[in-house]
Amino acid sequence: MTVSNVINGVNRASEATVATVRAAIAELGYVPNLAARRLAKAHATTVGLVYCNRRTPFLDAVLVGSLRATNAHGLQLTLRGGEGADRAEAERMAQDLVRAGADALLLIPPVAELLSGSAALAALNVPVAAIATGTRLPGVTTVRIDNRAAMVAITERVMSRGHRRIAYVAGPDAYSVVQARLGGFRAALAAHGLDEDPELVLHGLEFDHAAGLFAGRVLLERPAPPSAIICTSDDLAAGVIAHANHLGLRLPADLAVTGFDDTIVASRIWPPLTVVGQPVEDMAHRATQCLIAALDGMGSATTADELFEHSIVERESTSMAPRPQPITGDYGWTSPEGRLQR
Amino acid sequence: MTVSNVINGVNRASEATVATVRAAIAELGYVPNLAARRLAKAHATTVGLVYCNRRTPFLDAVLVGSLRATNAHGLQLTLRGGEGADRAEAERMAQDLVRAGADALLLIPPVAELLSGSAALAALNVPVAAIATGTRLPGVTTVRIDNRAAMVAITERVMSRGHRRIAYVAGPDAYSVVQARLGGFRAALAAHGLDEDPELVLHGLEFDHAAGLFAGRVLLERPAPPSAIICTSDDLAAGVIAHANHLGLRLPADLAVTGFDDTIVASRIWPPLTVVGQPVEDMAHRATQCLIAALDGMGSATTADELFEHSIVERESTSMAPRPQPITGDYGWTSPEGRLQR
Repeated sequence: MTVSNVINGVNRASEATVATVRAAIAELGYVPNLAARRLAKAHATTVGLVYCNRRTPFLDAVLVGSLRATNAHGLQLTLRGGEGADRAEAERMAQDLVRAGADALLLIPPVAELLSGSAALAALNVPVAAIATGTRLPGVTTVRIDNRAAMVAITERVMSRGHRRIAYVAGPDAYSVVQARLGGFRAALAAHGLDEDPELVLHGLEFDHAAGLFAGRVLLERPAPPSAIICTSDDLAAGVIAHANHLGLRLPADLAVTGFDDTIVASRIWPPLTVVGQPVEDMAHRATQCLIAALDGMGSATTADELFEHSIVERESTSMAPRPQPITGDYGWTSPEGRLQR
Repeated sequence: MTVSNVINGVNRASEATVATVRAAIAELGYVPNLAARRLAKAHATTVGLVYCNRRTPFLDAVLVGSLRATNAHGLQLTLRGGEGADRAEAERMAQDLVRAGADALLLIPPVAELLSGSAALAALNVPVAAIATGTRLPGVTTVRIDNRAAMVAITERVMSRGHRRIAYVAGPDAYSVVQARLGGFRAALAAHGLDEDPELVLHGLEFDHAAGLFAGRVLLERPAPPSAIICTSDDLAAGVIAHANHLGLRLPADLAVTGFDDTIVASRIWPPLTVVGQPVEDMAHRATQCLIAALDGMGSATTADELFEHSIVERESTSMAPRPQPITGDYGWTSPEGRLQR
């Protein structure tokens, strides 16, 4: 009865009983079914994800991508979201996760930057990886795109559409991507002989939709407004576009806008966004693999810095005349009542 | 050395060794540190989520909400996404998850409908819950809103804005929400003495953005086009709005549109969507609690059907004149160079 109860997980047999039974199972070589094998397995290897819980489509993409990546490797994912206010808060979140059973940590900006170099993090003695940072960070394996090169590429795409008066919405200084991307924007302007207009470059805003509304208002109220606005997230671009629509501007004829990340918002807003794409799920997979290797003692003792290819996805938010919307899907029209057959 | 290695998880001590050491630890009452307690714990209780992997903002909301809910209860979440083609495929996904260690299953439409009443599902002998269904389903605990009442409410909101020629995009028949919502739409029309125009009700489309583009094209090409289009997802509404923009319509002056779910897309598109809100994360929490109760043997032997309150969120996609955009956030303006202080 006891053995059966332990194997079938009935009535939560005490831990001591579980252990004794497991020892007996192991000695006897008796594995009656899959449930017993599950019981005999040590706890699932767990990755703890520490993030700032400001709600954006990019955060959703990271959560879903990290869930899929850890799931694909048979790992459990635990979460701690906080305000991202300071290093002490980030350290507490990391400590909480490890205390609750995390074997390794996965970080995203701005938590990655807050924790990089933290003695408290090092004292936890677990492998740590970060995705979507702007640079490599000490003590942490980083998996990222080349943000500078990506911003050069999309700035050049905007200039190739004829724009010369180009605004830029930079994001908060706490994120390592901000300087890297700004450097790319400036390099592209310089390479084409354009001066940067300080009135058109906004520093210190958040990456989210509300900040985009505000940026749109500031930039479009300029005496000499920009003809294009480069945004460092899709959510910023959506906010800029919302305010432009509120002002009655026609897009993209009156204003070109670009985003960054290629989250679901980029393809759902109008006009659909030209963006830099970040392969978030692929980066989460690679980070997970690095953590597993470190746990297995097979990874390098030093931390890695791995670069992934960004993409440039060109959509209607930058073309001077919108292309006709492609109608995709295999739908047929069969009756005047409106019943469609697939 | 062996005990220390087992406790510290070094070099992946064999399962038999682990069991023997754990038995010894239990007998001796020796719990040296948190790592040992983790080792002594049986595998984390696991919820397997079976879903159809057509990419929509609603799916993202379900994945994130389910991850947060299971995480909050200390459970592991595993995933299986498939095409949602037929019952046999859904059964295979459920079997895979249980074989791989899931103690309970969480389903969403259309998988929930495909598996409801399945003998293969019952044979797995695990608790099963489903969220966001349109009705209760046999053999499965359901956690949902009252879809009919929600659609009555939003249809009345549209009619209160003066619309009489109202189109409706229904969604695929495989989903139990479709009949419930359609019933609500029809009831609201009837209560106000309006006839349903079969040319304005589209059946059988998917819930996604591409289907919305198509629906927009069909409905707006009518000789007598609608003045309002009620959509049964935010993604459909975004597609309808994209096509309306492509045609050069002004929104909402020329066309009112409503969505369903209140995903992140609803607040990021222009005009922001008036929607029915579904409390996805709350429903995932409740479903998780029901599964835990069933596993603990403390839940009812029969399955439950739990109703959550929907919300109606009114935004600019239905008002006859758009309201000014609120500028939120604590931003100040400090210098002509554009540096903002927070």
